[in-house]
Amino acid sequence: MNTTHTTATTLGMRQTQLFTKTRKQAPSDEISKNAQYLIRAGYLHKEMAGVYSYLPLGLRVLDKITTIIREEMNSIGGQEIRLSTLQDQGPWSASGRWSSADVDVWFKTELQNGTELGLGWTHEEPVTNLMRDHISSYRDLPQYVYQIQTKFRNEVRAKSGIMRTREFLMKDLYSFSRDQEGLDAFYDEAALAYMRVFTRLNLGDVTYKTFASGGAFSKYSHEFQTLSDAGEDIIYVSKEKGIAINKEVYTDEVLKDLGITRDSLVEEKAIEVGNIFKLGTRFSESIGLTFKDEDGKDQFPIMGCYGIGPNRLMGTVAELHSDEKGLVWPKSIAPFKAHIVRIGEVEEVVAHADALYETLTEQGIETLYDDRDVRAGEKFADSDLLGIPVRIVVSQNTLTEGQLEVVVRATGEKKMQTENELIEELSE
Amino acid sequence: MNTTHTTATTLGMRQTQLFTKTRKQAPSDEISKNAQYLIRAGYLHKEMAGVYSYLPLGLRVLDKITTIIREEMNSIGGQEIRLSTLQDQGPWSASGRWSSADVDVWFKTELQNGTELGLGWTHEEPVTNLMRDHISSYRDLPQYVYQIQTKFRNEVRAKSGIMRTREFLMKDLYSFSRDQEGLDAFYDEAALAYMRVFTRLNLGDVTYKTFASGGAFSKYSHEFQTLSDAGEDIIYVSKEKGIAINKEVYTDEVLKDLGITRDSLVEEKAIEVGNIFKLGTRFSESIGLTFKDEDGKDQFPIMGCYGIGPNRLMGTVAELHSDEKGLVWPKSIAPFKAHIVRIGEVEEVVAHADALYETLTEQGIETLYDDRDVRAGEKFADSDLLGIPVRIVVSQNTLTEGQLEVVVRATGEKKMQTENELIEELSE
Repeated sequence: MNTTHTTATTLGMRQTQLFTKTRKQAPSDEISKNAQYLIRAGYLHKEMAGVYSYLPLGLRVLDKITTIIREEMNSIGGQEIRLSTLQDQGPWSASGRWSSADVDVWFKTELQNGTELGLGWTHEEPVTNLMRDHISSYRDLPQYVYQIQTKFRNEVRAKSGIMRTREFLMKDLYSFSRDQEGLDAFYDEAALAYMRVFTRLNLGDVTYKTFASGGAFSKYSHEFQTLSDAGEDIIYVSKEKGIAINKEVYTDEVLKDLGITRDSLVEEKAIEVGNIFKLGTRFSESIGLTFKDEDGKDQFPIMGCYGIGPNRLMGTVAELHSDEKGLVWPKSIAPFKAHIVRIGEVEEVVAHADALYETLTEQGIETLYDDRDVRAGEKFADSDLLGIPVRIVVSQNTLTEGQLEVVVRATGEKKMQTENELIEELSE
Repeated sequence: MNTTHTTATTLGMRQTQLFTKTRKQAPSDEISKNAQYLIRAGYLHKEMAGVYSYLPLGLRVLDKITTIIREEMNSIGGQEIRLSTLQDQGPWSASGRWSSADVDVWFKTELQNGTELGLGWTHEEPVTNLMRDHISSYRDLPQYVYQIQTKFRNEVRAKSGIMRTREFLMKDLYSFSRDQEGLDAFYDEAALAYMRVFTRLNLGDVTYKTFASGGAFSKYSHEFQTLSDAGEDIIYVSKEKGIAINKEVYTDEVLKDLGITRDSLVEEKAIEVGNIFKLGTRFSESIGLTFKDEDGKDQFPIMGCYGIGPNRLMGTVAELHSDEKGLVWPKSIAPFKAHIVRIGEVEEVVAHADALYETLTEQGIETLYDDRDVRAGEKFADSDLLGIPVRIVVSQNTLTEGQLEVVVRATGEKKMQTENELIEELSE
């Protein structure tokens, strides 16, 4: 389906105007690489353990990640909604997930009159309840609805920087199908859409669809696991077949079921970047969502749920795409595509750098412009830390040569280019 | 500053695929016009008193409102961030606003270890605290940061549909200036940006900058009040001068101060759609945010805050731009620009309507297409209720005539147009 674009983002920014500063040290209690770099580079602010605020550069990355997810969810027929955070007891009591004894990640609060409310940590119950107003016949199915919304989970221990926090965005999609075949077909489509998301984030090569434990309604669920030493999960990977098995279901029975032998699998640490789950009628039955089939008989829709955490993805990219100097963003989610680093305050250098900045932003190229009057060494170090894909050095030297010095952050490759060559490359 | 666009929205939608249905009745406890229409038209779902979820059409409207606000905040130098909802006691104790005895709208919750947390109902404290990492010199000022983020307020009574709820988006901007002159100048600029927002939402003619009570650091704050019988506020308006006074400061002293006489003012009910407030050093002092001035002396930045509620704005537009048949969206925030209503299931009519839908979306015109097989009367009633600006009727009749029947929702004006004429008008 065609898409249009509605969120306004500034195309260019001068670093003298950007309020964030880089810093040499991350908070001492921050041990994960992703949060250390993201805080040092001014992408994030740590509010408390497991709770982070997003500063301009960080929000730009996060917005790009959610845009990619949104595009892929729209492409498989997802309709976007926004459910509330505050949760009424009703539907959760019906499903047996209200009590904090049953679900240990609830944050609860209360109204002035003492009524207990919860903060949504997932949304099967409210979305199923909502659908009771809109689904009544087999003609109303299938439906795929999703949101990108803040979830709250009362984790005993927050860890791994922005990969396991108490407040985070989640893209959660819920599918409602007439029958098992409908669910199975959509489930496979969703899995492909997920892989497209990870590929667009430069995580495709190291992300595996992974067999994990199912529930009452299906033998397995699937996780998407990205290989990384920063991961909390252990998986067994067949790189050849492009699949993996989570340790929790790594049994002889499962191996036999999947036709895989232990010797074809390698043990790896991995980050769970997404999961998909066949719910069956677990929630449609307990919440009372039914439809009339072709024979006029009441049936329960067969449901599935599909989650991706944008913040965790951002942290995963920071873990995998970084080096000893700092972050190395893939082009698709970098806060800016180009970083002009001006060396020197001489009038003609300033004029040239200003003009280049104007030109690039007019060409629609997102550009950060280091127009600060600080030492060259500090500028280069900051530029490496920030991790924008292409650095363009403008100095007396490049002016004399009539060419720009272009440095690719990921490879360190340096080349001299004319302005036209540069624009052509950046516009690709 | 140039802006680019990053959020993907589907350009077209077929009503057979849209999961929401219109309904004849709103919930019986819903007495406000905005929520009645928005629920009946399938824009919203009521979760409980004062808590609503946004369905596809409603989310599209809300996103367009936030985009307009974002553009105007960027245009005055605002830098977008996203602060957390979960609030640590620290900065709030420092400012004296932690206790629920002092602030009666807190929702509080707690960590597993018993630590009390709050849900952000405003963000002066965390934003000021955050700035301690990034402001140290007069050269770092001024700064203008804003977010569009969900606030939680434990209102005793939720009322007026989506105009006073317990969970809602707020655009809150905070300014940090070196001195009073800097604050005053930005404050006036922000007021102009606010009026541009309201004008773009077709509320400009009936929205007044209104004198309201100030605080320790300024005589007055300002509200933006939109005239409406659905409003909770009483204001005294001078339409001639384009200003108003809130009842709370409608005293002889204030009238004298402003050089206005009672007989030039008319009493009106109004909806507060925005407010701006000079904070002085109230928070920089209590939180401990300082900068070195040109003489190396420590100073407190002078702050201001600037709020607009996107959901309330949506409700206000629904109150003001609606008639007995339903909603009447301004073009700027309508969920779709055009509504194709196909009458009849004859093959050539279907083919013609399908082709028109393809053409409009290819031309970048956001189009809802009523391709349902239901009675014409029901389609027209739904179309009126949904309130999309332009309805295009495709039927055997229009096919025979070689022209489309175009109906303007706001005026009821009907005209016959060729496809080219229509596209030209819609592309404006």
